[in-house]
Amino acid sequence: MQIPVFDDVTAAHERIAPWIHRTPVLTSETFDQLSGARLFFKCENFQKAGAFKARGATNAVFGLPRERLGAGVATHSSGNHALSLSYAAGRRGIPCHVVMPHTAPQAKKDAVRGYGGRITECEPSTSAREAAFAELQARTGADFVHPYNDPRVIAGQATCSRELLAQTEGLDAVIAPIGGGGMLSGCCLTLSATAPKVEIFGAEPLQADDAARSLHAGRLIADDAPQTVADGLKVPMKSLTWHFVREHVSDILTVDEQAIIDAMKLVWQRMKIVIEPSCAVPVAAILANPTVFAGRRVGVIITGGNVDLDRLPWLNRED
Amino acid sequence: MQIPVFDDVTAAHERIAPWIHRTPVLTSETFDQLSGARLFFKCENFQKAGAFKARGATNAVFGLPRERLGAGVATHSSGNHALSLSYAAGRRGIPCHVVMPHTAPQAKKDAVRGYGGRITECEPSTSAREAAFAELQARTGADFVHPYNDPRVIAGQATCSRELLAQTEGLDAVIAPIGGGGMLSGCCLTLSATAPKVEIFGAEPLQADDAARSLHAGRLIADDAPQTVADGLKVPMKSLTWHFVREHVSDILTVDEQAIIDAMKLVWQRMKIVIEPSCAVPVAAILANPTVFAGRRVGVIITGGNVDLDRLPWLNRED
Repeated sequence: MQIPVFDDVTAAHERIAPWIHRTPVLTSETFDQLSGARLFFKCENFQKAGAFKARGATNAVFGLPRERLGAGVATHSSGNHALSLSYAAGRRGIPCHVVMPHTAPQAKKDAVRGYGGRITECEPSTSAREAAFAELQARTGADFVHPYNDPRVIAGQATCSRELLAQTEGLDAVIAPIGGGGMLSGCCLTLSATAPKVEIFGAEPLQADDAARSLHAGRLIADDAPQTVADGLKVPMKSLTWHFVREHVSDILTVDEQAIIDAMKLVWQRMKIVIEPSCAVPVAAILANPTVFAGRRVGVIITGGNVDLDRLPWLNRED
Repeated sequence: MQIPVFDDVTAAHERIAPWIHRTPVLTSETFDQLSGARLFFKCENFQKAGAFKARGATNAVFGLPRERLGAGVATHSSGNHALSLSYAAGRRGIPCHVVMPHTAPQAKKDAVRGYGGRITECEPSTSAREAAFAELQARTGADFVHPYNDPRVIAGQATCSRELLAQTEGLDAVIAPIGGGGMLSGCCLTLSATAPKVEIFGAEPLQADDAARSLHAGRLIADDAPQTVADGLKVPMKSLTWHFVREHVSDILTVDEQAIIDAMKLVWQRMKIVIEPSCAVPVAAILANPTVFAGRRVGVIITGGNVDLDRLPWLNRED
């Protein structure tokens, strides 16, 4: 598979600019005090379709050659990529097919259908999802836009850190959550090309720590069906994202479930923004690792804000 | 009582600028489509202490003459003014005494104490609150900063619409929630002086509709202890705020409790910002009155974001 380069990022940025937001960067006195760092929150929860994934999906959809538009696009996704691909396909007026685990939050399913996406449900494991998808793709002939292991998608996600660099000064480090690694790979792609002194960190749930174990072992290790409140981070890295992570990421920090939930609630309380559990993972990692971050200027990718407001993790009763 | 004029607003703005945020103005394609209007959300939920009330409180505290600092300040409040006065007093290093109903959200009580405010609890009615306060003031000699019926406070709140005008172009109307009327009076003060063609609307819970009934009757009518989910809007107008509302407000629109809760949840879902029920009142009023707002450019004051995240109104079980 072709490895994207920084020229692909600038091309992607130009291609997607009419369809995405240049999201704001917020600061917070509260979190600066708690962390001892100076934090710059790149707020992709305000992005189209509610997450950074609109960038990569839009780049893939609007880069499709005319002769391949008829069959549309297809993907499997834990939610935000499905939403984003449906959004982008809708803007280009082509079909979008989505395989989703039946356990995905109802709010995400509703939103996919709201953008015109067509959902096929499957069991909530990586293997079941991939099997259902193979059948779907054979039937429709749609262009497969993988949620992260796709050079078009990684080049699109890389536009986020490109904006962050333009919106802030003197960053020492950037931290992003890692599930499949699309956002983190995008950060690697942009920063290694344009700001190689900025250190890159991943943050991961302890209960879905395949990326941390892979980085420490020096080889790709995958989980199947891990359980974490950060439902966007359950998927494993693949060849392309592993390439970027292995080459450019300093460390991947892990945090437990309670730390994720506490950080999520604290961001809602003090910053007044709605963020997904996934975004709380880097925030929790910063608070848990002052020796790494204190005294530094740190960009934090807030990846999305699509939450089922009827099922908030700090209110979860046993169902 | 002295009626504030626009010179007081410019003086207030200069006085409070080091201590408050110039909050952003957000737009939303979703709400523009739902309303048929073009909406500009002035986001005071991102303000210091989580609400616009930091403006008025800070103006009062930092305008105090040196010889009156020792006894500090005091107030009664349904929450955000208490928080804001505690914040401002803390920044100036003077005592702040607060009478609050014991039914106020726990998050607000904790936050007042977190800023160093000293709380005296009372029963949740206007009359009980005023009695408890009289005793407190006699005992401490503190300077009474009324939550809204105070020229210093109104001049401070008026800086919000002054910023909104500078941040947007061609507004046709501004709408704000009305409880005691401090914010709405501030809008009247600024807009009548600097943009008299901009129409001014209030929005109020149907279950606490004293302002709407007052405006329609042409005389000040007060409720005692109304019940609404918009807990910041339970208090009645007083002489000063009634003066501004009567002179400058086109209409006060009322909405029922379910409409408030639905609008609040929809803002969280689609705009990814945490807003209080009070802020949802004007949003609900816009959605319910397309004949008033469609086709117009409307500024919407999002007054605050201090919510007890353990007690969200759409999840409220009977306790």
